[in-house]
Amino acid sequence: MKKIDLRSDTVTLPTEAMRKAMTNAELGDDVYGEDPTVNRLEEAAAEKLGKEAALFVTSGTQGNQVAILTHARAGEEILLEADSHIFYYEAAAASALAGVQTRTIAGIRGAMHPKDVEQAIRGVNIHFPRTALICLENTHNRAGGAVLSLENMRAVYEVAQRKQVPVHLDGARVFNAAVALGVDVGEITQYADTVQICFSKGLGAPVGSVLAGSREFIEQARQWRKRLGGGMRQAGVIAAPAIVALTEMVDRLAEDHANARNLAAGLAEIKGVQVNPDSVETNIVIADVSETGRSALEILDLLAQEGVLAVDFGDTLVRFVTHKDISTSDIEEAIHRINRVIQGVVV
Amino acid sequence: MKKIDLRSDTVTLPTEAMRKAMTNAELGDDVYGEDPTVNRLEEAAAEKLGKEAALFVTSGTQGNQVAILTHARAGEEILLEADSHIFYYEAAAASALAGVQTRTIAGIRGAMHPKDVEQAIRGVNIHFPRTALICLENTHNRAGGAVLSLENMRAVYEVAQRKQVPVHLDGARVFNAAVALGVDVGEITQYADTVQICFSKGLGAPVGSVLAGSREFIEQARQWRKRLGGGMRQAGVIAAPAIVALTEMVDRLAEDHANARNLAAGLAEIKGVQVNPDSVETNIVIADVSETGRSALEILDLLAQEGVLAVDFGDTLVRFVTHKDISTSDIEEAIHRINRVIQGVVV
Amino acid sequence: MKKIDLRSDTVTLPTEAMRKAMTNAELGDDVYGEDPTVNRLEEAAAEKLGKEAALFVTSGTQGNQVAILTHARAGEEILLEADSHIFYYEAAAASALAGVQTRTIAGIRGAMHPKDVEQAIRGVNIHFPRTALICLENTHNRAGGAVLSLENMRAVYEVAQRKQVPVHLDGARVFNAAVALGVDVGEITQYADTVQICFSKGLGAPVGSVLAGSREFIEQARQWRKRLGGGMRQAGVIAAPAIVALTEMVDRLAEDHANARNLAAGLAEIKGVQVNPDSVETNIVIADVSETGRSALEILDLLAQEGVLAVDFGDTLVRFVTHKDISTSDIEEAIHRINRVIQGVVV
Amino acid sequence: MKKIDLRSDTVTLPTEAMRKAMTNAELGDDVYGEDPTVNRLEEAAAEKLGKEAALFVTSGTQGNQVAILTHARAGEEILLEADSHIFYYEAAAASALAGVQTRTIAGIRGAMHPKDVEQAIRGVNIHFPRTALICLENTHNRAGGAVLSLENMRAVYEVAQRKQVPVHLDGARVFNAAVALGVDVGEITQYADTVQICFSKGLGAPVGSVLAGSREFIEQARQWRKRLGGGMRQAGVIAAPAIVALTEMVDRLAEDHANARNLAAGLAEIKGVQVNPDSVETNIVIADVSETGRSALEILDLLAQEGVLAVDFGDTLVRFVTHKDISTSDIEEAIHRINRVIQGVVV
Repeated sequence: MKKIDLRSDTVTLPTEAMRKAMTNAELGDDVYGEDPTVNRLEEAAAEKLGKEAALFVTSGTQGNQVAILTHARAGEEILLEADSHIFYYEAAAASALAGVQTRTIAGIRGAMHPKDVEQAIRGVNIHFPRTALICLENTHNRAGGAVLSLENMRAVYEVAQRKQVPVHLDGARVFNAAVALGVDVGEITQYADTVQICFSKGLGAPVGSVLAGSREFIEQARQWRKRLGGGMRQAGVIAAPAIVALTEMVDRLAEDHANARNLAAGLAEIKGVQVNPDSVETNIVIADVSETGRSALEILDLLAQEGVLAVDFGDTLVRFVTHKDISTSDIEEAIHRINRVIQGVVV
Repeated sequence: MKKIDLRSDTVTLPTEAMRKAMTNAELGDDVYGEDPTVNRLEEAAAEKLGKEAALFVTSGTQGNQVAILTHARAGEEILLEADSHIFYYEAAAASALAGVQTRTIAGIRGAMHPKDVEQAIRGVNIHFPRTALICLENTHNRAGGAVLSLENMRAVYEVAQRKQVPVHLDGARVFNAAVALGVDVGEITQYADTVQICFSKGLGAPVGSVLAGSREFIEQARQWRKRLGGGMRQAGVIAAPAIVALTEMVDRLAEDHANARNLAAGLAEIKGVQVNPDSVETNIVIADVSETGRSALEILDLLAQEGVLAVDFGDTLVRFVTHKDISTSDIEEAIHRINRVIQGVVV
Repeated sequence: MKKIDLRSDTVTLPTEAMRKAMTNAELGDDVYGEDPTVNRLEEAAAEKLGKEAALFVTSGTQGNQVAILTHARAGEEILLEADSHIFYYEAAAASALAGVQTRTIAGIRGAMHPKDVEQAIRGVNIHFPRTALICLENTHNRAGGAVLSLENMRAVYEVAQRKQVPVHLDGARVFNAAVALGVDVGEITQYADTVQICFSKGLGAPVGSVLAGSREFIEQARQWRKRLGGGMRQAGVIAAPAIVALTEMVDRLAEDHANARNLAAGLAEIKGVQVNPDSVETNIVIADVSETGRSALEILDLLAQEGVLAVDFGDTLVRFVTHKDISTSDIEEAIHRINRVIQGVVV
Repeated sequence: MKKIDLRSDTVTLPTEAMRKAMTNAELGDDVYGEDPTVNRLEEAAAEKLGKEAALFVTSGTQGNQVAILTHARAGEEILLEADSHIFYYEAAAASALAGVQTRTIAGIRGAMHPKDVEQAIRGVNIHFPRTALICLENTHNRAGGAVLSLENMRAVYEVAQRKQVPVHLDGARVFNAAVALGVDVGEITQYADTVQICFSKGLGAPVGSVLAGSREFIEQARQWRKRLGGGMRQAGVIAAPAIVALTEMVDRLAEDHANARNLAAGLAEIKGVQVNPDSVETNIVIADVSETGRSALEILDLLAQEGVLAVDFGDTLVRFVTHKDISTSDIEEAIHRINRVIQGVVV
């Protein structure tokens, strides 16, 4: 039985073109700034994101943490959405490494209200930490791949600029947002001072992310990357497939989005499963299985026995993610198997 | 014109008995554990709080921070109410010093729902920080001196014990809670593993707090106090008035509570001021002045010109705190003056 | 038998004048900047040290740590003598709280060679931390109360200024240095950007130190003090005796120095004890007891039985400190008793 | 003119076998523990190093820092050689990230004397940080590739075990040590609780290191790696060449050592250059150019014009490193060119 792995778009395997790029990559020692492939990737990413400079890092988490370490210092506060990846999934690294306090704001489908952001920015008082950074996430993972609108991002950015607080965008899946909005990614990233993008999610590269910002910012970020052990030598071997990801793999994300919508539509038909297909904006589908009378983990176990893999997103929530290694017929097959499993449970 | 200072119960001046105690204090070098007055205070506080041992610290903030540093290590998470003093007023010290991530839960009148606490405790997952500590605050300052009920505290403590997460109580004003509940303070502190109590608020001592817990905990806390520079020499000079505060000043807090209720009742009569007297459980009154058309800061300026001092607690909120240096007639006079000021504004 | 406590000048008890000052101190809430006694102390200290502003803190350790936190940020390096108090006796607080790396330089009698300092200041390289601070200690505790000469301090300060690295002076016993050098303390502190002085050592106050520097520096330091829990309320009760210490207790340190020299001379006569009286510049005497065939701890035990208290400073080193509560005849008596103890051991 | 790059063994380019391994690597998502190539590398490395488990990291710095973060917590102290890579070249990361104080011991050719280590381990005292870790480096970079003898390592390890302090070995070049000593690497690593080895130095892989230790230790280390952003997805693409490095590239290090000795012998003949060929134990040569009357940087500039690259190691010291991309005839040619440059300078 073919395994249909919908756990995450991180499971994607490199394409033939990526493997070839890797093999033929021109290499050098990146700690000396001499890896031409890394340099090419950093330039291409910076340009695409509309920033002066960029820095290759080994993961989205590293890109976010280097950004926070560079923007803020110990005893300051950062604002971020209550379900954001940085707050929820990075093992408290922002406080552990940078010593910053996380102040969370509950958003609607991942979008913080600009007024809430404004109100959360601290005034001057000896009891208050300085607000050093606002973090956005687009698309927003725990909000089910929801897209922050350009309007929301602009409004938050205006507050930020008025209050002189920089904005960092966790854009691990920002190309999904760009495709969903039908805009160039630069229209999104213009509303952030620094951006992290990830190549090893929907874009399919094996490893790597980039952090982009002003030249001065990236210069400082480079030393924080070094401290975290992110300085690599012949990093061109992983930068090469990342270049392929950046230049050739963006447009096809539309297929993943279509597959996700189909999956949601199919799941919505299954008795015992609740999904709102209208909420599926990109490549993530979140389904509530509470009416099956089973927990998410129990359902996931049964699904795994049928070769369908997904992850839990709460006690009764299951997350499915579509990606380049999942075809339209995989989706049909997955719906078929899920239906069978759930019907066996609901009786 | 007599100044009526309702900014905080921290402005209280030491009593005659405290001054005398200070002058006659038997002293030694507390870094060597040889200050008999400090030892006496620590023993008395531990006993009163129902804990094995206690440690004299220079402030409530220091007591809370030493507790966090001793309970948790960098990369862990602590749970606390979204408006708690530790999160709101300690300048991000928990993250700056201990490297812990603050996870906030919005409470009702300062009380977190036990279910919310349970849900916020992290499971085992490489992306998740360990939940190292739950912090409570009783009475709760930003909730207007609200008292956490014994039921709420017990329920949270049961969750904590079941999940093997320790509980720290920021009891800077826990004696106000005990007086309001009509119970011995030990009935409250039984629902926390460690407690910080403050002598320089309503109890009137010039300086100092105590952190109490198990003997082993306090031994470790002692070194963290040292790192923060809280190790003092002849600290008996400030421990002596703290003993007076602990033994003689608790019962009279009832007067402050009565004064606060009277103040609230008086303010409720003033057109343009909104106060719910029923919400006044202890010595704090929060009034909304939005209907005056002026900001809290503007109103505070006008009040100050009339010799009435208070602090802002939001754009249109004013906080008044009663304490031992405020008499019943001071309250009447304050209401009189506030009324005059507000009437001049509202027209 | 009268106890002769030579463990440290921290064991000194407040004078009658200090007790009186405490009792009569005019008080206010120092968190609001309204304690007139604290303000008076800070102004007097700043003036005496030749700095723009000063901040009252609860201990020498707190003064040093607040200085480091204000001067440096995580990932930077501080230079300090290998046996300095900050490195040796502050429980790694500089790294724990400020995240700075300590780079030590072995000095001669506590004085680092300016060339060594210059060489240790890092150049620009992604692998190198920025050198953020140079710390001096005068007098130097572990070097036996040795005085850094004005020449040494000036030379180090010149290097520091040329390299644009600030200098902090741990002046816990800087008045001993001033008295020994026969200069005004300002002649010493001119060679440091920030200074910490301690009132509860030879000057005899029960509690407290001051950190002095530029107005802007002290403003920032104030918030770090808050984070460490060093913000106190009616702190005037301990600032008052500190004013007495600062204004009335400096000149008499000469007596302690004379006593220390006498003690050293007396110890030098005792067979089995090695002391170089010429090395005693201030109020500290370090004696080597290795020729007794006993460890420092064993000797200390025997001395304690005879009512003479001191501390170990290494396996076979014993430190004696003279202070205001030790008279000339106490010294004679101490020598007498020590001689008796040692003779009983050496046989 | 052919460039002869002797700056570092990090500049090595992957071999054909490595490129092939990369291309054919079986991949999976390593965050889910499902990359078979990463798993294979970790098992092979653990076995070779005689440890229970291993963790793939992106650099030697990351391996060292994850080790420190896992062994120690904030406010503790680590002992390490005064010129060690962790102290000298990792941008103060140990203090910045883990909050530990670095206590350095000057070694002889990189080897700390066991007695010095023993003496530096702190006793129990509230003023002292706990000694949490001893770090060794073999071979020792700044000591010119010097090899720590098995005797020295065993003696230090015996002290460590007696004092119950764990030992971490920075083994970025430990295979050079093994080859030089003519022993299996496990004979070296038995004297350390945890070891970091690097594949992208002399072993020639493009990227990556491994941290090895007990199973429990590695489990905890995995989360710290996550916090630093070292968790990668299809990391097999870089693990594959690392397997080649580990299994096929060790023995040939003997050639680099021979080349280094030849280089040293050649340099020793050049007037104005001082080298002790007997001090060359592995693949690093350090030459003193002070007698040329020029600084190291000036000499390096002139050499670069002749296509010979090296790095400065102090004001008048130049470091040359041999590696797999440098042949015996490259060495001859390098000596020839260096001679020409130096003779042009010395006159």
